[in-house]
Amino acid sequence: MTGMPLSFSPIEHTEAALERTCLVDDDIRSFVTTLPESARAEAQASEARMVAGQSFGPLDGIPFAVKDNIAVAGLPTRCGTLAPSAPAHKDATVVARLRAAGGVLLGTLNMHEGALGGTTDNPFWGRCMNPLKYGYTPGGSSGGSAAAIASGIVTVTLGTDTMGSVRIPAAYCGLWGLKPTKGRVPATGMTHLSWTLDTIGPLAREPGTLGAILSVIEGPDLADPLNTPLNAGQPHPTTLVGLRLGVPDVANLAACEDIVLVAFERFKLALTDAGVILTPINIKDWSPGKVRRAGLLISEVEGAEVLGNTLEGLGLSDDFRAMLLYGRRASAGQLALAYHKMQALAVSFDNAVLGLDGLLLPTAPQRAFAHDGAVPVNQADFTSLANMVGAPAITVPLCAPDGELPCAAQIVGQRGSDHSLIAMGEFLKDLSPVLRLT
Amino acid sequence: MTGMPLSFSPIEHTEAALERTCLVDDDIRSFVTTLPESARAEAQASEARMVAGQSFGPLDGIPFAVKDNIAVAGLPTRCGTLAPSAPAHKDATVVARLRAAGGVLLGTLNMHEGALGGTTDNPFWGRCMNPLKYGYTPGGSSGGSAAAIASGIVTVTLGTDTMGSVRIPAAYCGLWGLKPTKGRVPATGMTHLSWTLDTIGPLAREPGTLGAILSVIEGPDLADPLNTPLNAGQPHPTTLVGLRLGVPDVANLAACEDIVLVAFERFKLALTDAGVILTPINIKDWSPGKVRRAGLLISEVEGAEVLGNTLEGLGLSDDFRAMLLYGRRASAGQLALAYHKMQALAVSFDNAVLGLDGLLLPTAPQRAFAHDGAVPVNQADFTSLANMVGAPAITVPLCAPDGELPCAAQIVGQRGSDHSLIAMGEFLKDLSPVLRLT
Repeated sequence: MTGMPLSFSPIEHTEAALERTCLVDDDIRSFVTTLPESARAEAQASEARMVAGQSFGPLDGIPFAVKDNIAVAGLPTRCGTLAPSAPAHKDATVVARLRAAGGVLLGTLNMHEGALGGTTDNPFWGRCMNPLKYGYTPGGSSGGSAAAIASGIVTVTLGTDTMGSVRIPAAYCGLWGLKPTKGRVPATGMTHLSWTLDTIGPLAREPGTLGAILSVIEGPDLADPLNTPLNAGQPHPTTLVGLRLGVPDVANLAACEDIVLVAFERFKLALTDAGVILTPINIKDWSPGKVRRAGLLISEVEGAEVLGNTLEGLGLSDDFRAMLLYGRRASAGQLALAYHKMQALAVSFDNAVLGLDGLLLPTAPQRAFAHDGAVPVNQADFTSLANMVGAPAITVPLCAPDGELPCAAQIVGQRGSDHSLIAMGEFLKDLSPVLRLT
Repeated sequence: MTGMPLSFSPIEHTEAALERTCLVDDDIRSFVTTLPESARAEAQASEARMVAGQSFGPLDGIPFAVKDNIAVAGLPTRCGTLAPSAPAHKDATVVARLRAAGGVLLGTLNMHEGALGGTTDNPFWGRCMNPLKYGYTPGGSSGGSAAAIASGIVTVTLGTDTMGSVRIPAAYCGLWGLKPTKGRVPATGMTHLSWTLDTIGPLAREPGTLGAILSVIEGPDLADPLNTPLNAGQPHPTTLVGLRLGVPDVANLAACEDIVLVAFERFKLALTDAGVILTPINIKDWSPGKVRRAGLLISEVEGAEVLGNTLEGLGLSDDFRAMLLYGRRASAGQLALAYHKMQALAVSFDNAVLGLDGLLLPTAPQRAFAHDGAVPVNQADFTSLANMVGAPAITVPLCAPDGELPCAAQIVGQRGSDHSLIAMGEFLKDLSPVLRLT
């Protein structure tokens, strides 16, 4: 192939991404740090491999960026704060694996401070904007991870998801997002908010891209004490026909915007038309509000343990500090009851999904909202389920019936069924115009 | 069959059991309450079924008894305390299921106060004695459950196991004992010490009896929020030949009595001779002492939540109250770290048992000890592993090389492999004289 023009040029793509960052990101505020020099070097090395016919595979030369709570060698891992943080000695496992697959790291991404919140209106790194509607939130906490894709800078990013922090920004920005099975993707080098609930996950414009990324970042890492053995999972679906999805009584579980319910019903109809069997189900004792509060307490307590003395120092907003201090002052008994709720919910979930290929839910009860308006308290009511039970879940972007900001559904699978969910996603692309194609 | 003499008479067995209780239990102190009237009625009903050729099956007419933390309709569930307790309105699920299978309930059994300790030297219900050696502990906390069998009163009992409380008494009294997979046996009507760690389990003279009991008490019960769906588990072994057991470096994990190590080595040799493949394994970051302390904190915190205001009232010893008050005063952060240890141990365990049929360990680092001597702190060092990871484990009684009090091994299986462990136990019976036959 030497001498022939490449159909895909890593150098051109990287330059275009860097250029677009300069063009739009003063307004969007999706990046915390850009790494133009190392990115150019990585792109050149990738292009040299391609010219030599020695590509590393589908991710070789693809620009990507990662949330600011995932370590990049040489950069502080600030988690959206200004707290002092020494530069990381080495890349997080996921960054190292993506770089080893040829990925070109463009930089680190804005996030809700400490990953504990859903707007990415960051007091230190800027109010991250939804590229689909200026002045609106991209969601959080991985808001920068969604905005950097929706604004056209990159096609894939990594976020982290504690109660919905990958899936909600994906939903608000019209993207696909995956929260993997707990423990499947090593967290080494990620700064946890809650080691019990959170996991690294990819966002992208296409489900297939999520699969390509997951295949690279998943798998054994002895340095992460919570990295579980890989599970073969269920066989992947080969068609939508005959797939069985359970559908909880969404409207009674959380106060949803009407447009979200309309989009969800339209998606259900399209699924049924495509041969998917939808079954009404009940997840016993699932009270999303209570589950959210239990998840919040777990996050506040574990987050306070992770931050340690940093919690007392500079560089945190008063609001964030107050939430973690609440966690630090909580009693062991309070936390035990929150963990009990989590354990019981896992049992209810396992009973509900027996014999099913997954559960169907909206991703969030609302669409993206204005930064200047009130922040809804129930954003994570549908997403926190998957975190509490350790299950994988994929956000499916839907067209809004009114043609405005997108809506989104979510399919929650049995533990280990991550790639099955992605395979389903590939078939769902045929359901346009209900599905939002990007 | 009407008119023919029965080969097994429930009435005779029940009368013999009641008689033996009167004869030995003033000394052994294994019972808290006996129920002669209802037992006689149940035995008569059972005998009538047999005479009519309508037996309910293998448990019909079998006398049994349950630990004092398992509800029996009409009796207070005192958990080995004297705290005020209203009579239970209904049987615990396990008691109801055993009665429905024809079991004859003889009464409730002595236990270590609050299930939080390993001697069953109960300040309110008497110092329970090891029937194999007077003055020695039967172990705990299900000491009465083991003593009632070893003293010849009954052939099967139920205990509960939070850190080893079924398996250690079984070991000290030369019996078989099973701690089932977490959530497999409904806990409805059991008063938890730790809902995270504890489970009801049977003790018996034969592994087959454990299997018969488990088959009756396991399975769905919507009233127990932590009752997991039944898992088919691995196929049952049909021979010992080719079974693969992992063996951790026992002598370096806990300070063991020499005789325990000798008996364990002798058992390993017998297993190898029988065709079992023993593989040295390492469970990453398993420090039994730290795990025990984490399990103790979880028990103290959750136990304090379970007791609630009862904790402040009468009927508890100062020692027991102090342990639970320690749990009540603990911070959420302390508990979060204990849970983290548990989560990480589950991952290490899953990695260690991949491709194996189980792990082989001693049950306890020592044999039964004198009530008047010091209480070893490390009794649960080998047993708490299974509770922390939710796995099933079976105690296998071994002859002591010195002919004195028995030793014991333990096989820990993958979650859901309960009946496979019991099937292994049946084959192990052929390994006499290493195995202790009762």
